[in-house]
Amino acid sequence: MKKKVVLAFSGGLDTSYCVKYLSETKGLDVYTVIVNTGGFTENELTNIQNLAQTLGAVKHETIDATQQYYEQCIRFLVYGNILKNGTYPLSVSSERVFQAMALANYTNESGADYIAHGSTGAGNDQVRFDMIFNILAPEIEILTPIREQQLSREQEIQFLAEHGHKLDWQKAQYSLNQGLWGTTIGGKETLTSHLSLPDEAYPTRITEENPTNVIVHFKNGQISGVDDAEFENPVQAIRALNTLAAPYGIGRDIHIGDTIIGIKGRVGFEAAAPILIIKAHQALEKHVLSKWQIHWKDQLTNWYGMLLHEGQFLDPVMRDIEVFMENSQKVVSGSVEVLLAQQNFQILGIRSPHDLMSPEFGSYGEMNISWTGEDVRGFAKILANQSRIYHTVNKKDKR
Amino acid sequence: MKKKVVLAFSGGLDTSYCVKYLSETKGLDVYTVIVNTGGFTENELTNIQNLAQTLGAVKHETIDATQQYYEQCIRFLVYGNILKNGTYPLSVSSERVFQAMALANYTNESGADYIAHGSTGAGNDQVRFDMIFNILAPEIEILTPIREQQLSREQEIQFLAEHGHKLDWQKAQYSLNQGLWGTTIGGKETLTSHLSLPDEAYPTRITEENPTNVIVHFKNGQISGVDDAEFENPVQAIRALNTLAAPYGIGRDIHIGDTIIGIKGRVGFEAAAPILIIKAHQALEKHVLSKWQIHWKDQLTNWYGMLLHEGQFLDPVMRDIEVFMENSQKVVSGSVEVLLAQQNFQILGIRSPHDLMSPEFGSYGEMNISWTGEDVRGFAKILANQSRIYHTVNKKDKR
Amino acid sequence: MKKKVVLAFSGGLDTSYCVKYLSETKGLDVYTVIVNTGGFTENELTNIQNLAQTLGAVKHETIDATQQYYEQCIRFLVYGNILKNGTYPLSVSSERVFQAMALANYTNESGADYIAHGSTGAGNDQVRFDMIFNILAPEIEILTPIREQQLSREQEIQFLAEHGHKLDWQKAQYSLNQGLWGTTIGGKETLTSHLSLPDEAYPTRITEENPTNVIVHFKNGQISGVDDAEFENPVQAIRALNTLAAPYGIGRDIHIGDTIIGIKGRVGFEAAAPILIIKAHQALEKHVLSKWQIHWKDQLTNWYGMLLHEGQFLDPVMRDIEVFMENSQKVVSGSVEVLLAQQNFQILGIRSPHDLMSPEFGSYGEMNISWTGEDVRGFAKILANQSRIYHTVNKKDKR
Amino acid sequence: MKKKVVLAFSGGLDTSYCVKYLSETKGLDVYTVIVNTGGFTENELTNIQNLAQTLGAVKHETIDATQQYYEQCIRFLVYGNILKNGTYPLSVSSERVFQAMALANYTNESGADYIAHGSTGAGNDQVRFDMIFNILAPEIEILTPIREQQLSREQEIQFLAEHGHKLDWQKAQYSLNQGLWGTTIGGKETLTSHLSLPDEAYPTRITEENPTNVIVHFKNGQISGVDDAEFENPVQAIRALNTLAAPYGIGRDIHIGDTIIGIKGRVGFEAAAPILIIKAHQALEKHVLSKWQIHWKDQLTNWYGMLLHEGQFLDPVMRDIEVFMENSQKVVSGSVEVLLAQQNFQILGIRSPHDLMSPEFGSYGEMNISWTGEDVRGFAKILANQSRIYHTVNKKDKR
Repeated sequence: MKKKVVLAFSGGLDTSYCVKYLSETKGLDVYTVIVNTGGFTENELTNIQNLAQTLGAVKHETIDATQQYYEQCIRFLVYGNILKNGTYPLSVSSERVFQAMALANYTNESGADYIAHGSTGAGNDQVRFDMIFNILAPEIEILTPIREQQLSREQEIQFLAEHGHKLDWQKAQYSLNQGLWGTTIGGKETLTSHLSLPDEAYPTRITEENPTNVIVHFKNGQISGVDDAEFENPVQAIRALNTLAAPYGIGRDIHIGDTIIGIKGRVGFEAAAPILIIKAHQALEKHVLSKWQIHWKDQLTNWYGMLLHEGQFLDPVMRDIEVFMENSQKVVSGSVEVLLAQQNFQILGIRSPHDLMSPEFGSYGEMNISWTGEDVRGFAKILANQSRIYHTVNKKDKR
Repeated sequence: MKKKVVLAFSGGLDTSYCVKYLSETKGLDVYTVIVNTGGFTENELTNIQNLAQTLGAVKHETIDATQQYYEQCIRFLVYGNILKNGTYPLSVSSERVFQAMALANYTNESGADYIAHGSTGAGNDQVRFDMIFNILAPEIEILTPIREQQLSREQEIQFLAEHGHKLDWQKAQYSLNQGLWGTTIGGKETLTSHLSLPDEAYPTRITEENPTNVIVHFKNGQISGVDDAEFENPVQAIRALNTLAAPYGIGRDIHIGDTIIGIKGRVGFEAAAPILIIKAHQALEKHVLSKWQIHWKDQLTNWYGMLLHEGQFLDPVMRDIEVFMENSQKVVSGSVEVLLAQQNFQILGIRSPHDLMSPEFGSYGEMNISWTGEDVRGFAKILANQSRIYHTVNKKDKR
Repeated sequence: MKKKVVLAFSGGLDTSYCVKYLSETKGLDVYTVIVNTGGFTENELTNIQNLAQTLGAVKHETIDATQQYYEQCIRFLVYGNILKNGTYPLSVSSERVFQAMALANYTNESGADYIAHGSTGAGNDQVRFDMIFNILAPEIEILTPIREQQLSREQEIQFLAEHGHKLDWQKAQYSLNQGLWGTTIGGKETLTSHLSLPDEAYPTRITEENPTNVIVHFKNGQISGVDDAEFENPVQAIRALNTLAAPYGIGRDIHIGDTIIGIKGRVGFEAAAPILIIKAHQALEKHVLSKWQIHWKDQLTNWYGMLLHEGQFLDPVMRDIEVFMENSQKVVSGSVEVLLAQQNFQILGIRSPHDLMSPEFGSYGEMNISWTGEDVRGFAKILANQSRIYHTVNKKDKR
Repeated sequence: MKKKVVLAFSGGLDTSYCVKYLSETKGLDVYTVIVNTGGFTENELTNIQNLAQTLGAVKHETIDATQQYYEQCIRFLVYGNILKNGTYPLSVSSERVFQAMALANYTNESGADYIAHGSTGAGNDQVRFDMIFNILAPEIEILTPIREQQLSREQEIQFLAEHGHKLDWQKAQYSLNQGLWGTTIGGKETLTSHLSLPDEAYPTRITEENPTNVIVHFKNGQISGVDDAEFENPVQAIRALNTLAAPYGIGRDIHIGDTIIGIKGRVGFEAAAPILIIKAHQALEKHVLSKWQIHWKDQLTNWYGMLLHEGQFLDPVMRDIEVFMENSQKVVSGSVEVLLAQQNFQILGIRSPHDLMSPEFGSYGEMNISWTGEDVRGFAKILANQSRIYHTVNKKDKR
């Protein structure tokens, strides 16, 4: 009886090669799996299924993890206003982890002997897959034909052709990864330090010219509406906002940061809804959270984003950080008005019953209702105490 | 012999009232001082001097602290990419501290009996002045007529008129504070949570329509050139860049954050050069600093910005953080290309001899030159060790 | 009708003076309240009640907040291994906050016009009382006769005598504050930087000479047993352990740290059970939590301790930190063996079903079961990547 | 011509096997090197040299790195009060890094083809050696015979015997690693979670019974004297203090923490001088540094200790942290009195011209000289502002 391998299959050249190589050369029964985290249409999924079967997969499975991905991850990316290096919404980083977890669980349940992915040896994805597989399916050997063999595209195409699959593998100028939380773009300019991506590298065409205002509603930190439309499922709200904002060319940028493997990596991305939601959510939080809540949430969520990015989503500290974040969101309800313009947006203001900037407590720079000038004089006197003593004691060090 | 007070004088209604009140009502010799941190023209300074003397100041002093302010503060705001709450370049916060220090030193040297400022009891400035005065001139009593008397504009105008000064005090719709590191704007909409500032509230008119590329050069973290123009003094480079970029409407935003006195405060600002310099500097750093340098510098400088904002510039930890920042800047040299557009800009890319993203070490997602796939397999295996053990030991907690 | 004041009454000279002063001089109806956080015997509470009535209190209330204090505070001090400056278990700091909260609630419910405490102007307690009162009873004016009048002991005694209370107020050499979470000691040597407290300053006499082993049991982070004795209520376990350990002279030390008012303060303390429980709990956590759980919990709880110490227990970030801590304790169950000796103890070892140091995963320095030497070689290769690149690019900076 | 390997040689069985294996089986010219970081006597070094030559090393080199190790590392461990997990002074962790750096430099200079170490695959040392070698000598292949072959002691002894070296390899019950900054002990009980090391496992016998006071002097953070003895070289002061304190059994404990490879590791240590110096230094700092200096130095140095422990000493952030630490030490001068007792010590107090606890600024809990009660009332009022507003706005969430 043949041994069984579960392969993460995307329908691209690399994983197509893997199907063939694992079945023909390695003599394994190949079970292909695609995990949808919101980036594939029904049509695309059907094509991928057909391709898998054409290539000789014993069985192909489509797992829809979109809702779980929202509940267990995106939600926290919003609570935490998480932008890697202040820029990148962790679009592909977070998806990979949820794809890997779904694959590991499927593999465990199906009693497979091997688990395989088609990542190269030069990127982050290999580590994300390996990490999650090592943790959730520690007994199962990981096969990574692409990483090991380091074949060129031409060699892969030739191998497929030799095995009866003369497919039309067009080399895209850019590799795109699309999901609910944005599209990540690599290639050409992103391999340099000094060049920016041209307009055509991004998935959406900029067609909107006239600025418009949009109101984003939040309930306990989660997006609950866009203008007059209420959404029970935040996933729908994200899609609606994206449809509205993407044609403005909003949410595009280039992220340069540290990869898990220690080199610097640069990618472009387009993520209209994620960027808008995070910036609007953050504006609301500035009004309703205390100074130290903002301070500590920033610390923790910056770390959360880093560990997620690096495939360490299963470290138990992540669960601890999640309950911290969730607890802070009790008061993060209200609406945020945003002006959308071409390749630009502005947060105009917020409304919230939890707004701490209520004029009933005094107006900044204008009126002090609940305290006197004497109170502040005393405050500054006491607050200055330590530095006053320090400078008096250490006179020669005085600046 | 009359006692002597040194008064921080800006030429506005509040401090004009103070001159008169302190001299006439309190019977003090009033020494007015204005400390220029880059926001006043020669002409304005002369007018302020004339006004002081008209109002009865015994002596008026103009102190130019611009260069010192750059060397001891702005430089570090750039090293640290410091934007309060991710937004505000601390324009007025940092100025006040340097004005207060210059005033305290002047007062100490002049042997005055009192030191006075015209801040109200509702804002941050009173605390900044008080803090610095308490620390650097602890023996000298602080007088704050405006804070104590809580007069209306009309009452102040009437008092001045009664004492022979029928001046034309137009109430500006917005209060502006201008300096080398940006203009801060308060009033009307900023007193609400939901309204944004109109175009006319900002000091610069938007006149530039055509996008243009500009190259910002850095040498050890400091701006050293703009396009082909080299500047020995970064202060000049800041001014040059601002002249270029401000007419695009770049660097405008609204900051909402925690004031020193515990309420939330909201202000607008226009700071074209500060925002551009910080974002360009940060992009360069992402290429040349190590992951942990970026991580820890962010932690420290976030704190540095907070303490500076809150008038705690003289806490000795600030000096410790400064040497950390300065040390990290050894490799922060290179050029950054930026696209300026109307109310928008993009960082296009960087060039630096210290760039860690050199393709000679492997290209992200494309080529691994210095390591093998097996190396990464081992890396992920070991990196997964702790979570693997944790999840195996605590099986029922497994996600 | 007389106005009504609620006074925090401890039975000492200062608050006795306050009863008389507030009733006689100020003409108020004085309601005395003592909040027991575990440091008073029944007998002492009765004496305090009698004294209050003798002095003329309209009503005296004894509130037992011990259990609430444990549930809402001590529990988290254990979860967080919280020792201020690495030393002090926050004995009095945490008590005051719970006393203040009970007082504020009592005042709100009783419809009093004023709330009063007897703190001086030189310590932390005044700020803790003021802070909590300001937050929970913002409409009620705070009276602080001792702070305002700055009387000497002799003046207070004379005032009481003049009003018919010739009591025997012996001046203790040290002021002691006793509660469930330890005794804090101030006076004489603690007012210097160079002297240590003599043996007789501590409340417990050292009578145990023979070392003994004790096993402390934890269930989800809370102490659940001591040796063979199980306790449903951790409060009982704390008392039992203290009875056992205090006669060894364990848990004594001197804390020097920053007060809320900016000066340095120095106090002694004796806290046998708190110190033992925290050190045992921490040892257990080192075995069952992940590296990053320990890292981040330390960060947060260090901060939690600081805010608690400074009377900021009601900042909402405290609730967020508490849920983080609580979530981390899911696996903190097991037993810790400790050797008690005179003025000394050693953590001997732990046993836990959640121990991550299980030899089934490899033994440190001895055996690698789940990985190969090649895996670690790859790990180190990748982990070295960034520093290798940094040092190669910046050769002249190479150390 | 034979290829050349530089081998880190300790004189133990593992590295003796390596000499023979590398020369005989691999046919290499073996250059043995021992790097002394303060733990070897002249006699031991001579014996190691003789053994190396007997085993067939082409050349043996003894490098004394003690002074450099102090200047570039121990000094910062003191500035930072660095105890891993609050316990372990990083004795062996820090030594290995300096041994590895000396080896890498020697290898680069000698033009060797390989560099070898004798670490197993189960500990931290292999990673430290690999990391440093990868960074400083990236072109040179690392050989690790012990890690790869996983031989038993018996197999190694037999191989040596077959090659003519019938040496008497006694299996010590514990493996000890001795250096200037303490002795680390592994074996037997440390491989369990619940057993403690017996007295005989530690290198020093406890012979002192009578408590004695000792005064430790610091100059800008560095130990400069012990009682009346001044030392120009802190290395001598460390040795003097250790000679005095070790016979009391001070500075012994068990460290349990996270290894670089993800498992938990447990080791014993004896480090009388390091523990005393750090605790005394820290007590001094509590008197002379500001609250935020202590806070941030703790953050940074905790991280510094972690990276050092994990072999990441060459990350450039380490240099940035070092300048921060060094800058903070300007005022860390004074003397600390310590009581040494059997297996116990107490910090009694400090004296310093930089002491911020000077009674001239007010005495904690006793006297407020530089401020009034009204000042503190105002301070607490303003400090309570945010929480007061938060609780008023969010009434239903009120605790």
